[in-house]
Amino acid sequence: MAIDKVKALGFDVFGTVVDWRASVAREVRGLCAPKGIEVDWEAFATAWRARYQPSMAKVRSGERPFVILDVLHRENLEGVLEAFGISGLTEPEKDHLNRAWHRLDPWPDSPPGLARLRKRYPLATLSNGNVALMVGLARHGNLPFDAILGAEVARGYKPDPQVYQTTARMLGLEPHELMLVAAHNNDLVAARAAGLRTAFVTRPTEHGPGQTIDLVAEHDFDVVAEDMLDLASRLGC
Amino acid sequence: MAIDKVKALGFDVFGTVVDWRASVAREVRGLCAPKGIEVDWEAFATAWRARYQPSMAKVRSGERPFVILDVLHRENLEGVLEAFGISGLTEPEKDHLNRAWHRLDPWPDSPPGLARLRKRYPLATLSNGNVALMVGLARHGNLPFDAILGAEVARGYKPDPQVYQTTARMLGLEPHELMLVAAHNNDLVAARAAGLRTAFVTRPTEHGPGQTIDLVAEHDFDVVAEDMLDLASRLGC
Repeated sequence: MAIDKVKALGFDVFGTVVDWRASVAREVRGLCAPKGIEVDWEAFATAWRARYQPSMAKVRSGERPFVILDVLHRENLEGVLEAFGISGLTEPEKDHLNRAWHRLDPWPDSPPGLARLRKRYPLATLSNGNVALMVGLARHGNLPFDAILGAEVARGYKPDPQVYQTTARMLGLEPHELMLVAAHNNDLVAARAAGLRTAFVTRPTEHGPGQTIDLVAEHDFDVVAEDMLDLASRLGC
Repeated sequence: MAIDKVKALGFDVFGTVVDWRASVAREVRGLCAPKGIEVDWEAFATAWRARYQPSMAKVRSGERPFVILDVLHRENLEGVLEAFGISGLTEPEKDHLNRAWHRLDPWPDSPPGLARLRKRYPLATLSNGNVALMVGLARHGNLPFDAILGAEVARGYKPDPQVYQTTARMLGLEPHELMLVAAHNNDLVAARAAGLRTAFVTRPTEHGPGQTIDLVAEHDFDVVAEDMLDLASRLGC
């Protein structure tokens, strides 16, 4: 089987390993509610995240040079605060809120699932998050990554093929020896086009109870799993 | 104190965290002795390592573009095999031998010392070794690094200041918030000049029983420790 040649796993992180929506909603509520500010915090998290792809698109297109995701998140925060009519936060408060992305909680199966997978495979992040962000959330969530790779190290943003390929090369691997683990069909399709193996993990509430996308694997990926523990079982870990 | 501002530790690895000399000698002996080849294996390891600085110097000077340390090690292996009159190894055997550097044993205090340090500080490699090499030896030696940074990610070799500074920046830190841990005076002097804090760890047998260099800290580094466990105690871990 193709997966017998896989020598390491690369992980998409936002939504796949960690629950960004509930975590960001909790952080912004924790900062704003004591100030008497009340908005739909899940909607706030969703709106912040909605600015993620457009902001990276400007880097991918060459419209602006590469900047790390912390910078894009911080710029996007200004827009979403304005859109929700939230004002009066200090710069240190905004910086603290921006680092909510460094403190995202893992899905409950992620720490034990990754611990099992790590016994057999080196595990690397293959995320658009920057190194400091990934180190923060890996320590926060007890996620045993062997290396923090992906966007900042490759100086680009997924789904650019060079991000997947640079990650494989830095691990000393051919693209087909690296498997991307992700909860998003488009990420996996791009990884496959770059030569990687692919594992779809279902995260049906990443976007909340009314989620309509990425509920199922829409392509013939190498592995389809319910969660990280199921993935570990399917990979013989 | 200056060290109160330190937020992460970066580690030199060869000689500081792992015992390259005994490990390489063991690997080359294991491959060659069954073939009836007998040389001074510790001298072989030392001779291989002696070609390390000159090979990096060509990258630092711009004489050749950046290549990872695995490539330099492999080139240097050819020269040292010839110098020791060893012939007849196959290409796969040479490649296996070159990856001895991915399987270096830690000094005994390194795994428990790093485990204590990691409770308080994020730990990153700040080594000239490439990512795959570092991932390999971290897994081999149970070394709990949070991130693999240093030469390959910075596209340069220590003691170029940008290697130290890029490592700090990727950790989201100012240079003075990162402390280099190393057993080598010259590495620490360069790190200090780049703005980092410094911790000298004594490794009096890195070069064997007759070692004459780096037996003591020759400069006023921020911390001087006997080994990684002593470093952990001195940093309050």
